[in-house]
Amino acid sequence: MAFTPVDYNPYDFANRRHIGPSPSEMDEMLKAVGVASLDELIDQTVPASIRQSVPLGWAPLSEHELLARMRAVAGRNKVMTSLIGQGYYGTVTPPAIQRNILENPAWYTAYTPYQPEIAQGRLEALLNYQTMIADLTGLPVANASLLDEATAAAEAMAMAERVAKSKARGFFVDHGCHPQTIAVIKTRALPLGIEVIVGAPEAMEADKVFGAIFQYPGTHGHVTDFTNEINYLHDNKAIAVVATDLLALTLLKEPGAMGADIAIGSSQRFGVPMGYGGPHAAFMSCRDDLKRAMPGRIVGVSIDARGNKAYRLSLQTREQHIRREKATSNVCTAQALLAVMASFYAVFHGPKGLRAIAERVHFLTNRLARALKAAGAKVSPKAFFDTITVEVGVGQAGIMAAARAEGLNFRKVGHDRVGITLDETTDEKVLIRVLRAFGIDGVPPHRATLGFPEAMLRETEYLTHPVFHMNRAESEMMRYMRRLSDRDLALDRAMIPLGSCTMKLNAAAEMMPITWPEFGSLHPFAPADQALGYREAIEDLTAKLCEVTGYDAFSMQPNSGAQGEYAGLLTIQAYHRARGDMHRNICLIPVSAHGTNPASAQMAGMQVVVVKSAPNGDVDLDDFRQKAEAAGENLAACMITYPSTHGVFEETVKEICKITHDFGGQVYLDGANMNALVGLVKPGEIGSDVSHLNLHKTFAIPHGGGGPGMGPIGVKAHLAPFLPGHSEQGTDGAVSAAPFGSASILLISWAYCLMMGGSGLTQATRVAILNANYIAARLTGSYPILFMGNRGRVAHECILDTRPFAEVGVTVDDIAKRLVDNGFHAPTMSWPVAGTLMVEPTESETKAEIDRFITALLAIRAEIQAVEKGEISAEDSPLRHAPHTVEDLVADWTRKYPREQGCFPPGAFRVDKYWPPVGRVDNVFGDRNLVCTCPPLEDYLAAAE
Amino acid sequence: MAFTPVDYNPYDFANRRHIGPSPSEMDEMLKAVGVASLDELIDQTVPASIRQSVPLGWAPLSEHELLARMRAVAGRNKVMTSLIGQGYYGTVTPPAIQRNILENPAWYTAYTPYQPEIAQGRLEALLNYQTMIADLTGLPVANASLLDEATAAAEAMAMAERVAKSKARGFFVDHGCHPQTIAVIKTRALPLGIEVIVGAPEAMEADKVFGAIFQYPGTHGHVTDFTNEINYLHDNKAIAVVATDLLALTLLKEPGAMGADIAIGSSQRFGVPMGYGGPHAAFMSCRDDLKRAMPGRIVGVSIDARGNKAYRLSLQTREQHIRREKATSNVCTAQALLAVMASFYAVFHGPKGLRAIAERVHFLTNRLARALKAAGAKVSPKAFFDTITVEVGVGQAGIMAAARAEGLNFRKVGHDRVGITLDETTDEKVLIRVLRAFGIDGVPPHRATLGFPEAMLRETEYLTHPVFHMNRAESEMMRYMRRLSDRDLALDRAMIPLGSCTMKLNAAAEMMPITWPEFGSLHPFAPADQALGYREAIEDLTAKLCEVTGYDAFSMQPNSGAQGEYAGLLTIQAYHRARGDMHRNICLIPVSAHGTNPASAQMAGMQVVVVKSAPNGDVDLDDFRQKAEAAGENLAACMITYPSTHGVFEETVKEICKITHDFGGQVYLDGANMNALVGLVKPGEIGSDVSHLNLHKTFAIPHGGGGPGMGPIGVKAHLAPFLPGHSEQGTDGAVSAAPFGSASILLISWAYCLMMGGSGLTQATRVAILNANYIAARLTGSYPILFMGNRGRVAHECILDTRPFAEVGVTVDDIAKRLVDNGFHAPTMSWPVAGTLMVEPTESETKAEIDRFITALLAIRAEIQAVEKGEISAEDSPLRHAPHTVEDLVADWTRKYPREQGCFPPGAFRVDKYWPPVGRVDNVFGDRNLVCTCPPLEDYLAAAE
Repeated sequence: MAFTPVDYNPYDFANRRHIGPSPSEMDEMLKAVGVASLDELIDQTVPASIRQSVPLGWAPLSEHELLARMRAVAGRNKVMTSLIGQGYYGTVTPPAIQRNILENPAWYTAYTPYQPEIAQGRLEALLNYQTMIADLTGLPVANASLLDEATAAAEAMAMAERVAKSKARGFFVDHGCHPQTIAVIKTRALPLGIEVIVGAPEAMEADKVFGAIFQYPGTHGHVTDFTNEINYLHDNKAIAVVATDLLALTLLKEPGAMGADIAIGSSQRFGVPMGYGGPHAAFMSCRDDLKRAMPGRIVGVSIDARGNKAYRLSLQTREQHIRREKATSNVCTAQALLAVMASFYAVFHGPKGLRAIAERVHFLTNRLARALKAAGAKVSPKAFFDTITVEVGVGQAGIMAAARAEGLNFRKVGHDRVGITLDETTDEKVLIRVLRAFGIDGVPPHRATLGFPEAMLRETEYLTHPVFHMNRAESEMMRYMRRLSDRDLALDRAMIPLGSCTMKLNAAAEMMPITWPEFGSLHPFAPADQALGYREAIEDLTAKLCEVTGYDAFSMQPNSGAQGEYAGLLTIQAYHRARGDMHRNICLIPVSAHGTNPASAQMAGMQVVVVKSAPNGDVDLDDFRQKAEAAGENLAACMITYPSTHGVFEETVKEICKITHDFGGQVYLDGANMNALVGLVKPGEIGSDVSHLNLHKTFAIPHGGGGPGMGPIGVKAHLAPFLPGHSEQGTDGAVSAAPFGSASILLISWAYCLMMGGSGLTQATRVAILNANYIAARLTGSYPILFMGNRGRVAHECILDTRPFAEVGVTVDDIAKRLVDNGFHAPTMSWPVAGTLMVEPTESETKAEIDRFITALLAIRAEIQAVEKGEISAEDSPLRHAPHTVEDLVADWTRKYPREQGCFPPGAFRVDKYWPPVGRVDNVFGDRNLVCTCPPLEDYLAAAE
Repeated sequence: MAFTPVDYNPYDFANRRHIGPSPSEMDEMLKAVGVASLDELIDQTVPASIRQSVPLGWAPLSEHELLARMRAVAGRNKVMTSLIGQGYYGTVTPPAIQRNILENPAWYTAYTPYQPEIAQGRLEALLNYQTMIADLTGLPVANASLLDEATAAAEAMAMAERVAKSKARGFFVDHGCHPQTIAVIKTRALPLGIEVIVGAPEAMEADKVFGAIFQYPGTHGHVTDFTNEINYLHDNKAIAVVATDLLALTLLKEPGAMGADIAIGSSQRFGVPMGYGGPHAAFMSCRDDLKRAMPGRIVGVSIDARGNKAYRLSLQTREQHIRREKATSNVCTAQALLAVMASFYAVFHGPKGLRAIAERVHFLTNRLARALKAAGAKVSPKAFFDTITVEVGVGQAGIMAAARAEGLNFRKVGHDRVGITLDETTDEKVLIRVLRAFGIDGVPPHRATLGFPEAMLRETEYLTHPVFHMNRAESEMMRYMRRLSDRDLALDRAMIPLGSCTMKLNAAAEMMPITWPEFGSLHPFAPADQALGYREAIEDLTAKLCEVTGYDAFSMQPNSGAQGEYAGLLTIQAYHRARGDMHRNICLIPVSAHGTNPASAQMAGMQVVVVKSAPNGDVDLDDFRQKAEAAGENLAACMITYPSTHGVFEETVKEICKITHDFGGQVYLDGANMNALVGLVKPGEIGSDVSHLNLHKTFAIPHGGGGPGMGPIGVKAHLAPFLPGHSEQGTDGAVSAAPFGSASILLISWAYCLMMGGSGLTQATRVAILNANYIAARLTGSYPILFMGNRGRVAHECILDTRPFAEVGVTVDDIAKRLVDNGFHAPTMSWPVAGTLMVEPTESETKAEIDRFITALLAIRAEIQAVEKGEISAEDSPLRHAPHTVEDLVADWTRKYPREQGCFPPGAFRVDKYWPPVGRVDNVFGDRNLVCTCPPLEDYLAAAE
């Protein structure tokens, strides 16, 4: 037998693991599409005029090479005990939560719970989160997380402006707020014309402000009762915001008891690793009558078609995808996965456990203060929880160095003080090291005494709901997490063909490093020489993203795509201002843009001018030119999406850029559809000046059920000097609390780039386009496909028009819910065109899975046809009764179609069928009867019914 | 408000995480049991006469303290590139397999698939494993794993003896076998009176042996065609065994093609970390006509009640729980989890990928050999796959040191050679380091040429089944793993109340360290100074187990409980022999003993004498005394279980020990029920001489769906000198391939001991007894409870008698399957008494979960009562139709009870119900129509049906 070596590389991550269709599957798909090769399809799809000339350069790594590289990089980070505080704290992630949530694809690959029937598990976990926040802050309504504490503070300011009856233009900021919070508030205030007044609370002039924010406890540890200041604000029709700390609130009087209108903060220290800045879930709660002005997502309780309790996202009419530039904020992606972790942390510990942790931290801080005072040190404040400040005079540098020698990071405060914040991980051994850094031997004995007045003790109960009083045995906890995850449909079970959301594979190898302590345990403000590994990763990722986009510089600060848009527009504005173009404030936005575009422009202080679409879905070039002309020297920017939100590579993109530049404007190219460009087209080469990249879409960061996200912005060189700065780096214009945003998940995108290599990334784009065109080709004739390009091709997604079915009463909702019976998440509904479904398969889906999806859609089409033919009414059809649940099967069957058809439509798995836990959810009921904390009669524990 | 500190430790692992019932739940349970305190219950249950006087001493660690300790210990191991080979190889665990199998409780907490309806997922994975082994070895029947390659070789020898027509008493062993394999074969042969002849294959005298084993490729790399030797054996009616390597077989002629009757080996290098010795799955395959003589579990294909395909364990009548001392072996726990991993590795890579890996390893080895030869070195063998041996003369120590300086471990061969084995992880960089150790710069270029004759090339196809040709995209793989795990019921969803199996919590924190590279990447024969972390862990674990048991020494070699029994009996025999008591060979075993007891005694060459049980379940003391007397000076040992397999603390245990000792015998106390003793009773203090501990039961190692296990043995000082030795330590009597067995999972038990502390372990025992007595108390009156102790108490398990229901046609099977409808794994069935259910809740189950189980059993009792009253026949009842599947619901309902009753009996979850993927499995059909590789028309890929 002659020997012939195998031509196959089992370690080719891009082609064997990440990209779905196998070579033979691709051949079949190309045939169905009607092209001879993938090259031909790409040539038909992506205009030659905009294609990049030089392919992406770097070589790919295999999974084990990647992990070896990551281990080496991790080794360059130095894990010290950071007692810096300032909003970031050491915490103990319960191993069961790490394993079963953070490292479990059933949780981290889920999408935002817009389809409530397939998201009851994470909705329950988020409702627990809201309940926890509402309870601890003492305010009745909480949202399901915001991006970080600093942006939550800025959101609170904007909300205060919306709801305050005071007409004053000032916003008062307690000088005891964290510096990064003050910086982000200032950034946000500037374009909105709000005057930020920073000062001591006792110096506040309430008649000059529409609101104020106080930090509690303060950044340097002060525990202060702000009741008087809040009353003073209320007397002046102004709004009081309290930035606070959840752990402290288990012991201390809650903001609600002081009369606060809004509370914000971070839930990081509830079990979420610091991760050199994030991701963590920030929170916001408010008075009941303010809830409709609150930004972010709110989970509420409703009922399903059988009248059973069901969770859903409430009050969506507040959100930017509905209200656009009139939205309450541009918050879209939040920090769902981290909010889920924090809520489970609270479930794990319960109120007693949380308070025990708080007491432990506090008593240790008290011991530390006693020891320092006994040694003659000047320690402030008088009333503290976990943070003290020590006067060290000219010895500051020496003390900081002595601390580092003990493996500790203190906080440098001014030139003559150091700050020390203790946390859940602090034990007596750490205390000994801290004192040794001050030259003090030993520690005073434990005493259960308070470091603040008893009057500041909390008087109300919290976390009284049964879920926080579950038996906390790990078996019970593990099963609760498993049950919730089983209720949900995520990428680990089926494709999520969401147009504009790019739900691609989040590979296990990409996820592994983020839970290594070398990456998880770093404080975002730790000295740079302790984060050399992070620096290497961020620099290399930046270089690769520059190569991909054709930009010259990146800022990693924005924690979401919407934040990226906002940061990009601020950068443009700063550029105009620096050139003296103070008047430029008009932003042209096509009518088909993502809702976040106008919302972000509004936040950046720009005036939105909407540009029409041509019938083929393209930007109406004439209208664009006309409106640019009309704006003239007031043109600040245009925001376009490329390929367009209609899924088409517009041939006119360069023309649009040229017109904008001709009138002195800057081009913001929204990176939402970057998955159709990587390796083929560089935004920076076709005329764009700035873009954000959704790393959580295009670059493999998982969606986490609605966050985390990362939306770094790339800019051409002329804009680079105007990128966001950061207070820790001594510069202004921060848009996030941490200098590199949610730094730890940048590792995921970096790992993705490293394993794919330049050629793999390019091939991914090509196959994403193939997959979309394959779906379009297979469904043509069954569903009208909107907006094909000039040559009859779609880009990486395709829009199915379901409006014709409305005539017989079949809605887009019916189709979306019927897909649940097949075990699929619905495509994007009614966007960018009402009554359509936008399908984006991504490159990660195999032909087998795509075929299963097509089978499902064809079977649905047949069911619609039966309605069209009058064989069954829409009301009686399985379409309207979808999704079907086990309850439907157990009950007497009175439907006009067989059980078999209802529950096992073509495309559904048989043995492995996903059963939604609830039937169709009643949206109207939920908004009319808003309940957004755990309902009182919940039966989380009752196993048997 | 006055401040009162909380008295609560949220980091108390034992009481907050591991032990199920909360303090208030325990109060309610004690009330139901009818005692005032847990102390009172324990006093009523555990005889005062045997209680240990000194409590266990060490303090507990919290989860984060444990992980910090583990990290420090990991840091003491030194991860080098081990090119030692000898049965253990570097391998790349695909990250998706690590995350979704090895680190996923849905897989690792499952029990052995004796209840096939709730185990279809792992049964399919194991069937894939069998198919892979059968294909690669070229023999049609394979089992679902054995403990390690060396014991598999010994099992093959025993099997050869059973099936050979030759009456010779010799067994020939190729001197090219791994030394540890030869050692374990010798250990096994001795008590069976088999003469082991080690030599060169060409020197074999086939007429003197009933069988022979050849290593292929040989331990020093030789690739030899054994066809002639095998023919020679067959001419002499002897059996040919080939120990082989799966990766090599993707390129090389398979043993089946040489005519081999049996093949064995290890599947470690298919993605399972070396772990300093294990756990890994060994394999065995054989000719079709030998299958009924094969040891271990075999998965087969059958049908369910609807005639749908269903998997199950086949041919169980071969096994020791049925055949006892006449069983084919004592194999019980095997290495299911690791077999699953290896099978997924093959699915991940497919035949092409595996062959590509093999070629890569081989070409690199070829380059290495060429470079060495070019430099003038003497390299053997002429035909090799991945291993070469280099003559280095007096330079051996120098070369070994030079290798270590390069971060490499070579194999020391004799006094003048070194062995080098390359593997999947070897790349050119490693090759450069290897050559540098020989003082050679650079490497010769890659050439795709073979290092063995083309005649040795494999000519047959393998892994042709569609499952090995799935699309290998990670999304598809992840979903396949998820679908399989969703079909199964494991501890992550419900309690598994299996008497005698102690299915307790396997905590996430305990599982985390085992996948750290510092523990996973160590070769078992790496120099001791590279394994200081392991040494620390093993020494401390040993000290703690000695304290727990009252023994003086431990051997960590045995990889399962049954291996522990066997090793313990060998130790006893060695002790007798050393004293000149060559005649002692009688082993007294109560009739109620675990089946492994007589099977192990038989393997140890002992003659089993069965002792009767008294009606109350105790050992019949008179019969025992009489049989000991009859044995007289031939008495070698007795094997008892304590508390008895009937779940009772016999008061007479000390008397039994005394009688045994009086006649010169040794007491073997089976550790199966150790969960009722830890912290309360020390076997070594009540008269026992040796015990094995099931670390995978009592000490928190997960069952993995049928393994891994660890069965270390503890002995009193007088037996310590006779514990198993190991060839790598220059001593005889090895029972396992590696000196510390499956060393890496010892870390789990160590972590468990560290976090529980002595007091936590003791409390766990007490609560295990409480939970069992609570069940007994609640079920009294509904089910007869067998074998209560003198004071009306059971130990840590209780036996429900279902024989009275047989009169009306309700079987124990009906009850077991009906429990599936409630989402429970059945208790142990018909053991130790036919027609009973033995329930062991363990300490980890909460009252809520136990109550759910009791609710289910009471509802079942009511259904039986309906049969008793004649309201429904057994045949028509939900009991007989259990378990109910979705297919039952979808089909027309013709049953005589409502759908609701059938599918949602009291105790079942509603929203979160577990639906078995198949109905009741037909056992007879499966054994009659044995198919134990993947069925040809499988539809693994067909999503839609």
